[in-house]
Amino acid sequence: MSVTATPAQLAAVREARASYRSGVSVPTSGVAHGLAQANLIAVPQDWAYETLLFAQRNPKPCPILDVLEAGQVESTLAPGSDIRTDIGKYRIWRDGELVDEPSDASAAWQEHPDLVSFLIGCSFTFEAGLVDAGITMRHQELGRNVSMYRTNRECAPAGRLHGAMVVSMRPIPADRVADAVQISGRTPAVHGAPVHIGDPGGLGIADLSEPDFGDAPEVRDGEVPVFWACGVTPQSAIMASRPPFAVTHAPGHMFLTDIPDAHYVQ
Amino acid sequence: MSVTATPAQLAAVREARASYRSGVSVPTSGVAHGLAQANLIAVPQDWAYETLLFAQRNPKPCPILDVLEAGQVESTLAPGSDIRTDIGKYRIWRDGELVDEPSDASAAWQEHPDLVSFLIGCSFTFEAGLVDAGITMRHQELGRNVSMYRTNRECAPAGRLHGAMVVSMRPIPADRVADAVQISGRTPAVHGAPVHIGDPGGLGIADLSEPDFGDAPEVRDGEVPVFWACGVTPQSAIMASRPPFAVTHAPGHMFLTDIPDAHYVQ
Repeated sequence: MSVTATPAQLAAVREARASYRSGVSVPTSGVAHGLAQANLIAVPQDWAYETLLFAQRNPKPCPILDVLEAGQVESTLAPGSDIRTDIGKYRIWRDGELVDEPSDASAAWQEHPDLVSFLIGCSFTFEAGLVDAGITMRHQELGRNVSMYRTNRECAPAGRLHGAMVVSMRPIPADRVADAVQISGRTPAVHGAPVHIGDPGGLGIADLSEPDFGDAPEVRDGEVPVFWACGVTPQSAIMASRPPFAVTHAPGHMFLTDIPDAHYVQ
Repeated sequence: MSVTATPAQLAAVREARASYRSGVSVPTSGVAHGLAQANLIAVPQDWAYETLLFAQRNPKPCPILDVLEAGQVESTLAPGSDIRTDIGKYRIWRDGELVDEPSDASAAWQEHPDLVSFLIGCSFTFEAGLVDAGITMRHQELGRNVSMYRTNRECAPAGRLHGAMVVSMRPIPADRVADAVQISGRTPAVHGAPVHIGDPGGLGIADLSEPDFGDAPEVRDGEVPVFWACGVTPQSAIMASRPPFAVTHAPGHMFLTDIPDAHYVQ
């Protein structure tokens, strides 16, 4: 569906990006409501082909929304933006180790002027559709980050890049699980339908209360844990594959685009 | 939809690939009915990133079904196949010029052992759905190749790779055009819904009777020309961008996979 943002949405998203640029660092859930948010992974040019191929081979966890040219810092999804500064909190990775979480990543681009930035779809987009259908997002209700887990499902590798799929989990009332599947299935460009429903052990998750990323969940009686492929998967691949250098967003601190969520709904 | 080929389909497709391998060269429309066919573009490794990015930025004309590793010749979509020999007719390109149309491309892989092969979805897949719905494919009826045209729509470029979108055209009765849109729209992984309906001039096509690829069409009274993004687009990009070397299939002579068309239907 081709739609454009309203003037009010554009004003809100520009103000939010400007605040992150000036040093504000807060989770972006609910910010600039109705506009798509994105995961970032930026790698030196030498790793760009494998990153793009990894995403192409694993489209559910890594749906690509935009690829910036080497060294380019303005995404076509957000005219006037600067990928080096407009995210509230970054992660800097060296040889697969997380070494820093700055609120400004300009130094990374000074060190590696050839960085290629990939923007990857975010589950916040389909969450909007779930909430509109009356399916409450528990983590939003509790003011927490969604729970994310590394699984025992290996992604399809691409050259030197490999790693396990990361999933996000939302507890859904048993009588709304089918709705959640159908609604999220309408946004294949942003993770689409769940990859797994119920039985955390089947994904190699021993204890739901200990997520690998984000906050612990609260699963109530009558609710089923529903698992979606997650855009944090590239960070899992970085940890496993140990490229010499990479920059990502910090989980929950997404890049805000000017593109309405509705653009990604089929 | 996850489905597997029947033993009869697998026997038919293996026999067809073996015949092309032994030198047979015939158009593949209708061969191994029900299994997906693919366009081929193979480029030296130095051009692989731009080719993959071009496809990612232009998913309607260039939906990727498989990417083989550099020098690899067996696609996961067709175990036991050999991409150098199992297409009936190839095209060899040097500096953007078509220089040869051999029935065996082994010499190309000897010259460039690092060739990276991309398999791209083919409209034959959605044609099957149209025919099942009672929408006759005129070119099949006449035993011709579908009509294809270079348009005035530039694809999104990727580095050195750029070019105009190529479309295939099928005349559709006015009262079935909406059905054709909806049926092909269910296969977004293989070109999806049309990009243009009626008014050839709007795509810069001056004369429908003079296609740039394939055979001339026959549009009858009460029919509307319907245009779909076409997997021959990479060949147009090769002509425009002049990479030093490339191998493609010859239009109409597709690579046959073991994957049912139904796998690509949503």
